[in-house]
Amino acid sequence: MDFDYDIIRKKAIALLEERGVTLLDIANITYLLQQKYYEDLTIDECLENVEMVLNKREVINTVLTGIAIDKLAEEGHIEEPLRSILLNDFSLYGIDEVLAYSIVNVYGSIGLTNFGYVDKVKLGRIGEIDREGKAKGKCNTFLDDIIGGIAAAAASRIAHTK
Amino acid sequence: MDFDYDIIRKKAIALLEERGVTLLDIANITYLLQQKYYEDLTIDECLENVEMVLNKREVINTVLTGIAIDKLAEEGHIEEPLRSILLNDFSLYGIDEVLAYSIVNVYGSIGLTNFGYVDKVKLGRIGEIDREGKAKGKCNTFLDDIIGGIAAAAASRIAHTK
Amino acid sequence: MDFDYDIIRKKAIALLEERGVTLLDIANITYLLQQKYYEDLTIDECLENVEMVLNKREVINTVLTGIAIDKLAEEGHIEEPLRSILLNDFSLYGIDEVLAYSIVNVYGSIGLTNFGYVDKVKLGRIGEIDREGKAKGKCNTFLDDIIGGIAAAAASRIAHTK
Amino acid sequence: MDFDYDIIRKKAIALLEERGVTLLDIANITYLLQQKYYEDLTIDECLENVEMVLNKREVINTVLTGIAIDKLAEEGHIEEPLRSILLNDFSLYGIDEVLAYSIVNVYGSIGLTNFGYVDKVKLGRIGEIDREGKAKGKCNTFLDDIIGGIAAAAASRIAHTK
Repeated sequence: MDFDYDIIRKKAIALLEERGVTLLDIANITYLLQQKYYEDLTIDECLENVEMVLNKREVINTVLTGIAIDKLAEEGHIEEPLRSILLNDFSLYGIDEVLAYSIVNVYGSIGLTNFGYVDKVKLGRIGEIDREGKAKGKCNTFLDDIIGGIAAAAASRIAHTK
Repeated sequence: MDFDYDIIRKKAIALLEERGVTLLDIANITYLLQQKYYEDLTIDECLENVEMVLNKREVINTVLTGIAIDKLAEEGHIEEPLRSILLNDFSLYGIDEVLAYSIVNVYGSIGLTNFGYVDKVKLGRIGEIDREGKAKGKCNTFLDDIIGGIAAAAASRIAHTK
Repeated sequence: MDFDYDIIRKKAIALLEERGVTLLDIANITYLLQQKYYEDLTIDECLENVEMVLNKREVINTVLTGIAIDKLAEEGHIEEPLRSILLNDFSLYGIDEVLAYSIVNVYGSIGLTNFGYVDKVKLGRIGEIDREGKAKGKCNTFLDDIIGGIAAAAASRIAHTK
Repeated sequence: MDFDYDIIRKKAIALLEERGVTLLDIANITYLLQQKYYEDLTIDECLENVEMVLNKREVINTVLTGIAIDKLAEEGHIEEPLRSILLNDFSLYGIDEVLAYSIVNVYGSIGLTNFGYVDKVKLGRIGEIDREGKAKGKCNTFLDDIIGGIAAAAASRIAHTK
């Protein structure tokens, strides 16, 4: 069986938007990361690079999987104790970082530093998504790491191409 | 919020058993991997090492998450196209390998080779689990990689301690 | 300071050849891995994919670094105990696998299985390189993993594009 | 051939000191990372955790290898273009991050964020080591990432045990 990733890519972007994240939100994080290194960098260029990251099958698959888990935790379809671990964004869970890493790495190991940084300081939309995830019954455990991973990968792509 | 990983560990082992995999099945794979290097190696020693791997929080979290996804795909709770990707164990999905890698790595990078090998030749119970996963409506997409990851990590632990 | 990776790429390929490995040797390993999945696959196609893998800066940097270490160990420029660890290809060293992993991963996590397999069964030229490395004063500790990594990445690229 | 890692561990610590980094320097970075989460955390506790990280063979091997490359680049034993890439700490090199990652990961993926953060903001001794590495003929390309990796792994260990 084969799958049409042009369609699946659109689904992944729609899922991000359904969860409150636009590609422009992600491009803004990339811009905050890279503006001091490239004075002529524009938001549009960042957006273009975010879109290129989202062409990668591994990234699309990670978006689909991470958001599916967040939603299933909210809907009550995930068994305990995993559901509580997810709803509480338990700091020793770690599988969210594992998934983010598979995104970050698509443009090489140089993305690691930027991912860690945006995840720690909760840059731009990441901080809002993290806070929204703390509401009762809401789960953004994977979403914030996915956004950070895509933003960091786009920053790596800029570094490789500019 | 804190979580009691003594209890969660038991839950992870129970989930493996519910899906048809005992720790002894995994120990047998480790034995097949390591018997030619250590002529006095016993199945009991392999089992002990599998149990040590399952003491690691990262491993437990991966088992809970991977099996949850397999089950949710079977139950129809996962949206398309991810559900079909999972039910078909689509070879370009890759998130199963990403999760397995986080298990393999708990005793260092030397486990990588053994994981790749058991995953490719579908050693021992891995082959059966893989075949069972091909039945209509059945999903073992994550399970076979999880077993391979634990068996490879146990082999690394033996290499480090013997 | 900037670097011209068109030139550096040629240097990396020249280093592989200096150590006894042609791109065709690597393409043959990729062919052995993938021929049963694609009956119309040719060696030329495999070679083309190996060349694409070698366009990636992360791969080029890994080749330069790994081969540099092998050569420096032979030349006696590396201090003990690292020199003996390298000359003996000590099985618990692991940094060779770490470097290989950064190559394998350029086309995503699906390469992991193929890398582990070729590294374990020492497919094609890998086995010869491994044996040659056992000669007194000779060090191929990184080289065999580098070849395996490139061959596995090329196999992933074929899987993604065919 | 077998190796005595009690002795090799001492060599790794001596190498760090020879390059201007004490375990206390690293413990201070860990303290800066974790003090806000554990109000009773002491520097002594951080130092103890840094020492535990340095018990791991994979960490010791990474320290030996990374510092060996830095020193060989300074001594002129590494061929061009790799020597210039290393002496300039070229931002697209990436192998330093690859090696750091193998340290960070010994206590699981939760260390990723802390590593990225300390590497980006160049916390504590990392910033000094990075600046010292910019002097003509001096190379700290691997050293700063190694320190950051050990500090982040120690932070993960504290999170897992406290």
